[in-house]
Amino acid sequence: MTPASRVRAHSAVTPVEAVRWAPEGRAVRIIDQRELPHRLVERDLGTVAEVGEAIRTLAVRGAPAIGICGAMGLVVALRDAAGRPPDEFGRRLAALAAEIRGARPTGANLAWAIDRMLGRAAATGGDPRATLEALRAEATAILEEDRAMCRRIGEHGVGLLQDPARVLTHCNAGALATGGIGTALAPVYVAAERGCEVRVFATETRPLLQGSRLTIWELMRAGVPATLLTDSMAGSLMRAGEVDLVLVGADRIASNGDAANKIGTYTLAVLARHHGIPFYVAAPSSSLDPRIADGSAIVIEERAPDEVRQVLDRATAPGDAPAWNPAFDVTPAELITAIITDRGVHRPPYDFTTGR
Amino acid sequence: MTPASRVRAHSAVTPVEAVRWAPEGRAVRIIDQRELPHRLVERDLGTVAEVGEAIRTLAVRGAPAIGICGAMGLVVALRDAAGRPPDEFGRRLAALAAEIRGARPTGANLAWAIDRMLGRAAATGGDPRATLEALRAEATAILEEDRAMCRRIGEHGVGLLQDPARVLTHCNAGALATGGIGTALAPVYVAAERGCEVRVFATETRPLLQGSRLTIWELMRAGVPATLLTDSMAGSLMRAGEVDLVLVGADRIASNGDAANKIGTYTLAVLARHHGIPFYVAAPSSSLDPRIADGSAIVIEERAPDEVRQVLDRATAPGDAPAWNPAFDVTPAELITAIITDRGVHRPPYDFTTGR
Repeated sequence: MTPASRVRAHSAVTPVEAVRWAPEGRAVRIIDQRELPHRLVERDLGTVAEVGEAIRTLAVRGAPAIGICGAMGLVVALRDAAGRPPDEFGRRLAALAAEIRGARPTGANLAWAIDRMLGRAAATGGDPRATLEALRAEATAILEEDRAMCRRIGEHGVGLLQDPARVLTHCNAGALATGGIGTALAPVYVAAERGCEVRVFATETRPLLQGSRLTIWELMRAGVPATLLTDSMAGSLMRAGEVDLVLVGADRIASNGDAANKIGTYTLAVLARHHGIPFYVAAPSSSLDPRIADGSAIVIEERAPDEVRQVLDRATAPGDAPAWNPAFDVTPAELITAIITDRGVHRPPYDFTTGR
Repeated sequence: MTPASRVRAHSAVTPVEAVRWAPEGRAVRIIDQRELPHRLVERDLGTVAEVGEAIRTLAVRGAPAIGICGAMGLVVALRDAAGRPPDEFGRRLAALAAEIRGARPTGANLAWAIDRMLGRAAATGGDPRATLEALRAEATAILEEDRAMCRRIGEHGVGLLQDPARVLTHCNAGALATGGIGTALAPVYVAAERGCEVRVFATETRPLLQGSRLTIWELMRAGVPATLLTDSMAGSLMRAGEVDLVLVGADRIASNGDAANKIGTYTLAVLARHHGIPFYVAAPSSSLDPRIADGSAIVIEERAPDEVRQVLDRATAPGDAPAWNPAFDVTPAELITAIITDRGVHRPPYDFTTGR
């Protein structure tokens, strides 16, 4: 931020809210991301079946948003049981928690949120109505803490943006993935709120197109200037001098700073280094994993080859073509200019061995 | 090629033929590339309207293939006029030539082929039947010269491949783009013919998906092992040590060696440099342009933003999203390990000022 930018009128920047309470807390209100970018459909999830389906079908996505949705969904689904005897209420709670957790068995954030809810219930005990209110407060706390986390990332990160700033991002680490203003996009939203001229270039992010379907949509809706490009165009954009910094999210960060994120992130890091452009990773401090020394310990999930042979379920290649489909890549710490978390801006040499 | 590879049995490698004469020369037989990768449809073009439509709708594509198709199409369309008086035949020739040329007004190769045909007609003169036969011979010569050009690129380039070799390519510079075995893929086909173990990794090449639709298809059909990946995965593939060399085509090469090619080529060149992997450009010597000193003189065409906002005509982004769609990029000569043409393997410092 330059001083000049601070005197500008604050802009009307309004990021979407991916997950929140419906009025009177009767349902979890989500933006149905299966409908994007074609239509904005908000859906109220009032039963555990609806919550499970939303998580399974990626109507709600992004680790933080899924965790929040699971915790809030547990409260909504338990409402009918509040008049039951304590032991019946307890069994119902356990069953619903297991069902929601099962909607995404590998989702660390979902399991963490459900465990936290069960812990709160155990600590409250006794009267079902009191427990239900305690669980509602806990789910709200999970949502609010996520919002605060996003906001802190934004405020720590905004100092890395000049005014004006042209930011290249990848995939979607925005409001649609969290309860708040996102992780990688948080500094962008904070800069825009402060009246800075900030423009985002978003790669479409094949194979699942989170950039074109989600990132461009949420930025346009929030009033932040954004331009879409295919993944193959990032190098040319940098060479043309159009990128001031790269800002991406991370799913997991090793204690030496190596960062796992959506496939294609590493390519952007190499391109940024070649062009002398700063490359920043923004993520919640809960993504820091002190148990792993470096990125070599991170196993890269390979997803179904049809995602590469198809776009939006339409064949783009021979159906029997061999295809490679790693979901993530690991960017080595030496290519990362700084890592932004809710705790601050971390510079190399990174050392996250002391815990989250 | 190692000596060991030479004693292996030659494989049955049969690249497709994108353009050839139908029996008795009554039509131009093309592979209709609009149907790929779903179906192999051969289409016989018997009139100038059919030739024009095939060129306009990209049923035939690739500069060399389009030039060949135009020249052969002119002969086919003129057959009916061979019994006419010489002056009427001459007017018909001029009209048909103009119509074919107009199917792709910016196609330098098409214009070159049509000019060459008109020159041959002028040099023959007189009897329409004799002129028609001369034109048939000229079109066949254009086809055969292109085949020979591809073969020479393959034979010069094959020496750059070890055995086994893992080649990363981009877009389609294969048999489907030429009258022969392609340009970038020519060394691959020659290596495979000689029994070498060669595997190709093909990027899908957004936005128009020439890699997934065409390159993978033609390699699989020819019996060359091939694997598809999205453009965003190339960096990870190199980091995993899976790529021995990059081999791409070029549309135009400046006299200092800067090479214009499909968007995304430059990104691969930067990635190759970062990983210490050789990066080769293969192109006909007709692509060498001594009139331009370096790549800065090459104007990059920007195509319709809908190509980026859509895949196969289906929306992947908001319809009003700003999108950037450069058709090409320029790879600076300093990132190119060698340039392979039908004249040989050119090493830096490149100097193509002395003409084609």
